[in-house]
Amino acid sequence: MKSVKSNYNHTFFHIDTMELESVKIEKEEEMNIVLGQSHFIKTVEDLYETLVTAVPDIKFGIAFCEASGDRLMRYDGTDQELKDLAVKNMREINAGHSFIIVLKDAFPINVMQAVKDVPEVCRIFCATANPCEVIIAKNEQGRGILGVIDGEPTVGIEDEDDKEERIKFLQDIGYKR
Amino acid sequence: MKSVKSNYNHTFFHIDTMELESVKIEKEEEMNIVLGQSHFIKTVEDLYETLVTAVPDIKFGIAFCEASGDRLMRYDGTDQELKDLAVKNMREINAGHSFIIVLKDAFPINVMQAVKDVPEVCRIFCATANPCEVIIAKNEQGRGILGVIDGEPTVGIEDEDDKEERIKFLQDIGYKR
Amino acid sequence: MKSVKSNYNHTFFHIDTMELESVKIEKEEEMNIVLGQSHFIKTVEDLYETLVTAVPDIKFGIAFCEASGDRLMRYDGTDQELKDLAVKNMREINAGHSFIIVLKDAFPINVMQAVKDVPEVCRIFCATANPCEVIIAKNEQGRGILGVIDGEPTVGIEDEDDKEERIKFLQDIGYKR
Amino acid sequence: MKSVKSNYNHTFFHIDTMELESVKIEKEEEMNIVLGQSHFIKTVEDLYETLVTAVPDIKFGIAFCEASGDRLMRYDGTDQELKDLAVKNMREINAGHSFIIVLKDAFPINVMQAVKDVPEVCRIFCATANPCEVIIAKNEQGRGILGVIDGEPTVGIEDEDDKEERIKFLQDIGYKR
Amino acid sequence: MKSVKSNYNHTFFHIDTMELESVKIEKEEEMNIVLGQSHFIKTVEDLYETLVTAVPDIKFGIAFCEASGDRLMRYDGTDQELKDLAVKNMREINAGHSFIIVLKDAFPINVMQAVKDVPEVCRIFCATANPCEVIIAKNEQGRGILGVIDGEPTVGIEDEDDKEERIKFLQDIGYKR
Amino acid sequence: MKSVKSNYNHTFFHIDTMELESVKIEKEEEMNIVLGQSHFIKTVEDLYETLVTAVPDIKFGIAFCEASGDRLMRYDGTDQELKDLAVKNMREINAGHSFIIVLKDAFPINVMQAVKDVPEVCRIFCATANPCEVIIAKNEQGRGILGVIDGEPTVGIEDEDDKEERIKFLQDIGYKR
Repeated sequence: MKSVKSNYNHTFFHIDTMELESVKIEKEEEMNIVLGQSHFIKTVEDLYETLVTAVPDIKFGIAFCEASGDRLMRYDGTDQELKDLAVKNMREINAGHSFIIVLKDAFPINVMQAVKDVPEVCRIFCATANPCEVIIAKNEQGRGILGVIDGEPTVGIEDEDDKEERIKFLQDIGYKR
Repeated sequence: MKSVKSNYNHTFFHIDTMELESVKIEKEEEMNIVLGQSHFIKTVEDLYETLVTAVPDIKFGIAFCEASGDRLMRYDGTDQELKDLAVKNMREINAGHSFIIVLKDAFPINVMQAVKDVPEVCRIFCATANPCEVIIAKNEQGRGILGVIDGEPTVGIEDEDDKEERIKFLQDIGYKR
Repeated sequence: MKSVKSNYNHTFFHIDTMELESVKIEKEEEMNIVLGQSHFIKTVEDLYETLVTAVPDIKFGIAFCEASGDRLMRYDGTDQELKDLAVKNMREINAGHSFIIVLKDAFPINVMQAVKDVPEVCRIFCATANPCEVIIAKNEQGRGILGVIDGEPTVGIEDEDDKEERIKFLQDIGYKR
Repeated sequence: MKSVKSNYNHTFFHIDTMELESVKIEKEEEMNIVLGQSHFIKTVEDLYETLVTAVPDIKFGIAFCEASGDRLMRYDGTDQELKDLAVKNMREINAGHSFIIVLKDAFPINVMQAVKDVPEVCRIFCATANPCEVIIAKNEQGRGILGVIDGEPTVGIEDEDDKEERIKFLQDIGYKR
Repeated sequence: MKSVKSNYNHTFFHIDTMELESVKIEKEEEMNIVLGQSHFIKTVEDLYETLVTAVPDIKFGIAFCEASGDRLMRYDGTDQELKDLAVKNMREINAGHSFIIVLKDAFPINVMQAVKDVPEVCRIFCATANPCEVIIAKNEQGRGILGVIDGEPTVGIEDEDDKEERIKFLQDIGYKR
Repeated sequence: MKSVKSNYNHTFFHIDTMELESVKIEKEEEMNIVLGQSHFIKTVEDLYETLVTAVPDIKFGIAFCEASGDRLMRYDGTDQELKDLAVKNMREINAGHSFIIVLKDAFPINVMQAVKDVPEVCRIFCATANPCEVIIAKNEQGRGILGVIDGEPTVGIEDEDDKEERIKFLQDIGYKR
């Protein structure tokens, strides 16, 4: 017989010691963000080098929350406005080892695979031009991202005409043959 | 001296303006789902093409929540029942830019690496045949996936016999030499 | 005209049927953990083989929560202390299909890309040597990881001197030319 | 001033000490092969496990030329005919650290990305159902693959009708939407 | 005792039945090419979609040698001059299942990882803006690429000053921090 | 009707204007090499950073043939002997845009996937500790690698006992469970 669950004594903290909050991403409408979790201060340099390698003359800002030691907001980029926005948003989120990329004139689809392949990147929460709220858990130790509300809910199901339009749209913008 | 935390003024929304809810995935026992976060309507076509490339004659349904513009549930697949299930589950989840894949006779392990490598896929929350509950954060703007409860908790720790059985099991089903 | 949102009838469970709890990772200061979501019991063998392939003579422990069937904590590794710690932490977390890797003398950056490329690995929540709290959702069915609080919040923004130090630091430890 | 080319003294062996030969792949018309270069005897087990993970119930044979030690043809697979063919072809090629996969009812496109991602796989020479000749360099030490002649040369350039047919063909066989 | 080499009866074709030839790539100086081996007519559409996804408004031409059936030169792109050059070069090479990408104002480094990850791409021979000769083996069946002569040989070894210049150069063009 | 082959006028150079030569890799027995094709001087820094990221305290030398401009042998590493060997071998090979990595106390399997994922790496010819000859094509423009003879040919086919030994060997050295 297997040992049973009653052997497991969790010392857990109920929700009254932890708060959830929601941070609204601030950006201009046509900008895109990529929000992720990484580890290690090297993230800033590696993301920078990855992004400039991905797209010629790419305009971006990145910010990363150093979670130990000096605990500074680390940032970089190729465009002052986007750097400022990256820092501004990350100050609100301020979750250990999280990072944000703010892009203009380039799109997440241009850089995402390269970002996912940076060795110290753990995961990407979202990549979006939509209004976006970041759900944060917060306790005495610090802050962590639980998830995102990326845009608005669907209001219906596509029908055959919608499908055709969708396929045509992707061809019109040049992404699909 | 570094600037201090008191400079950071969060305008956060407490939990009383945000609700958490849990959506139970509906599927037949032997089916598998892959639940993920993407961005961009192109996801549906790219996931379709990725899945048919991964496994010959694969049976699946996919649904994706368009999070802006027409805000339609976009869907596709190679099997009507699985398409219907994908749409049905996604209607309940209805979180911006999330997607679900429902698989029969094929397994997440056959397609996961290819799905992770689709450029617009951000992350995969889970891949499972287990009963699965999806934890959703919901506010006035919309809905976002925070995580999943995938199956049931463990009830004990494997011993040497369990280890041997595990290794033998993987060899018996042909996955390991 | 599109169908409207009112067609969507969620049968959701409010937060009073679900609890959030926080589990503190236990480890020695210089150890690193990688916390992830996978599917399928094969994870243990595949992570083992991936890690020994990644770094010669690597010291690690892994534990994985089998979420159906025998529902055992599956574990493996090359070092007894690290195996014990992996199991101990995973017993507290005990979320279906989640796994932990505990590393000594090697770093997440050495193994992360290989772990992300294991076909049954869904995502990595965090990779860190920091104090780390894992946020868990818990209901009658089981437990799921929502996110992590990885280290502490930032207390300021790096200035030009901090930037130079950062770049120099990465060169000094040999990671950057 | 830079040092000049005259510093470089090659001790090269002219073509009279090295022969080129061509080995014709033997297979049934509808079978596909994947021909590659790897290193290390672990290739056989890793390719086996990769292929069974990629496609449910996949039928294949693999053979690998161990290039030191016992110097045996290593082989495995899930189908006797395909294993025999893999060995037969590899005996003719017999180039150190090269491997062949012979597939039936599955296609290179189903497995190639996974094969490229096996850590000890160096490169893939070709993947084809066409008549295929393997160009080998051969000297006193051993044999190495230089390249392949995969199918026949083109005889013209597609026009607009051919393009339309091509796009339609890919949709008809289900690979493209 | 192991069986011995004398069991192996190669029926090989000596070099007198096979010719080697060299094809010089034709392009403008600042253009880059990527030359590779793939399988399957789907390559053209997949490379097209991969390249437009990789870099916004990318200018390129691709050509691919269909190696069976209609045996047509398949081609596509976003720029007429580059499409013409891709076709022109591929007509000279004309090796089964080989492809060429000709790029202007974008660089191989922007697209290579994405191209390597296209499921039907076997390998990339070279990526270069240099004068480039493609070595072809040619027999009665067809033609195959054996390798490339990419640019000119080195004429010396870098010294400490050259190293510093190299590092500075990469920083000046923005690729390295 | 399709246009026909007679339209294609190759201006090819027969083998009398091109020589093949073979360069023997020089290294100590237990060292491993990885030989590849890349493009662009950035290769040296990227390979360096990739290798130090892959394995803690890794000992290696790399050399890369710059194929235009200054046309210098570019090199780097963490161990003088291995740097010298990398340069020495690359001087003999001296093929445009080719590179070599020489490893001690680490193995190709530890670093290969990371090397394959460096954006400017085109392909890897071989990874081996065996005696290795590199086949070079050489003409007035320069030199290019056609292939390698990696170790010696097989002398027989493994039987059931050999298979068992192989599986046991991989378990004994710790690579397989």
